Amino acid sequence: MKENLIIGIAGGSGSGKTTLTNQIAKQFPEQVTVIKHDNYYKAHNDMDYEERSRLNYDHPNAFDTELMIRHLIALKKGESIECPVYDYTVHNRSKNTITVVPNKVIIVEGILIFENQELCDLMDIRIFVDTDADLRIIRRIQRDVMERARSLESVINQYLQTVKPMHEQYVEPSKKNANIIVPEGGYNQPAMEMIRNHIKTYLDGNQ
Amino acid sequence: MKENLIIGIAGGSGSGKTTLTNQIAKQFPEQVTVIKHDNYYKAHNDMDYEERSRLNYDHPNAFDTELMIRHLIALKKGESIECPVYDYTVHNRSKNTITVVPNKVIIVEGILIFENQELCDLMDIRIFVDTDADLRIIRRIQRDVMERARSLESVINQYLQTVKPMHEQYVEPSKKNANIIVPEGGYNQPAMEMIRNHIKTYLDGNQ
Repeated sequence: MKENLIIGIAGGSGSGKTTLTNQIAKQFPEQVTVIKHDNYYKAHNDMDYEERSRLNYDHPNAFDTELMIRHLIALKKGESIECPVYDYTVHNRSKNTITVVPNKVIIVEGILIFENQELCDLMDIRIFVDTDADLRIIRRIQRDVMERARSLESVINQYLQTVKPMHEQYVEPSKKNANIIVPEGGYNQPAMEMIRNHIKTYLDGNQ
Repeated sequence: MKENLIIGIAGGSGSGKTTLTNQIAKQFPEQVTVIKHDNYYKAHNDMDYEERSRLNYDHPNAFDTELMIRHLIALKKGESIECPVYDYTVHNRSKNTITVVPNKVIIVEGILIFENQELCDLMDIRIFVDTDADLRIIRRIQRDVMERARSLESVINQYLQTVKPMHEQYVEPSKKNANIIVPEGGYNQPAMEMIRNHIKTYLDGNQ
């Protein structure tokens, strides 16, 4: 039996991948480690706030993927890591870190994780959550305008300026690296059950 | 626990869905029943050979889906069925039938099975095998020209006249009914393992 089961969960903004990740992890408390690409936004201590706020956060270069790869390799070896924390209020990496302990099952989550081949090669199964663009922008508006009190105009501008073009240039093509495509993510019960049973079979040593 | 697990496996011609179906069934001998939509091509005793050979076999109306639905309901109830056999040499239903015995796991396979809502509603999980059109025509040519000794011209003509337009009109939109999309079908090992573990969990009563 493999020493770890590394599951990648990718998909566009608003696709439902975080819901899927959370619902799966919740079913295996203390048995699944989750690391999120969002935590690995690059530190930009060399820039001021204005410069940092103008960066393109939907481009692969916005992430310190090298650090995430080193951390994933460490978790596979059974070592704990100090996961960075990103502070969205100042658009920079926080001074705090979170200690993440290894488990036999590790979920790697993020919009662009299938865009990096080295990261892909570390995963045993790559799941892409695929949701129509209209549903994704609706969910983004609901989250950012209704829950986070951002202006509708700013959400739409950001969507048109970076989210949509980066999705088409990097996220959508990275779907080619998926082994399984899940429409609607965490809102898709049969797919959730199949992923849960896959993890359960692995944890029971029943492969 | 559900009394049956009904799995639908659909996808275009040459997608790899039959390979996937066969590889899964092979791993659970005597525990999985497979029924194929291809067996349910309509009988056309009212037509002569020439008329039958001009029919569009890639259209939903080519199939006796009502009979397949009745058979699936019977299998779910634990009853055996007499599955029709299609004789491709005469383009008509054969006089022979095959006795198909029920099992707790039933796989329904076919290009157009997700196009029929009543059939969809009988399935617990719907898997669509999604393979690029260029790879699908290459596999079709390999199968029909190299293995079945048909002329390259006739394979390409049939593809352009019915297979491709019917795929775009009926098969591709029916993907919307899928719970899971599997790129490359039976050539995708991680997806195969996940489906196998799902069936295994069900058969072990370990849900």
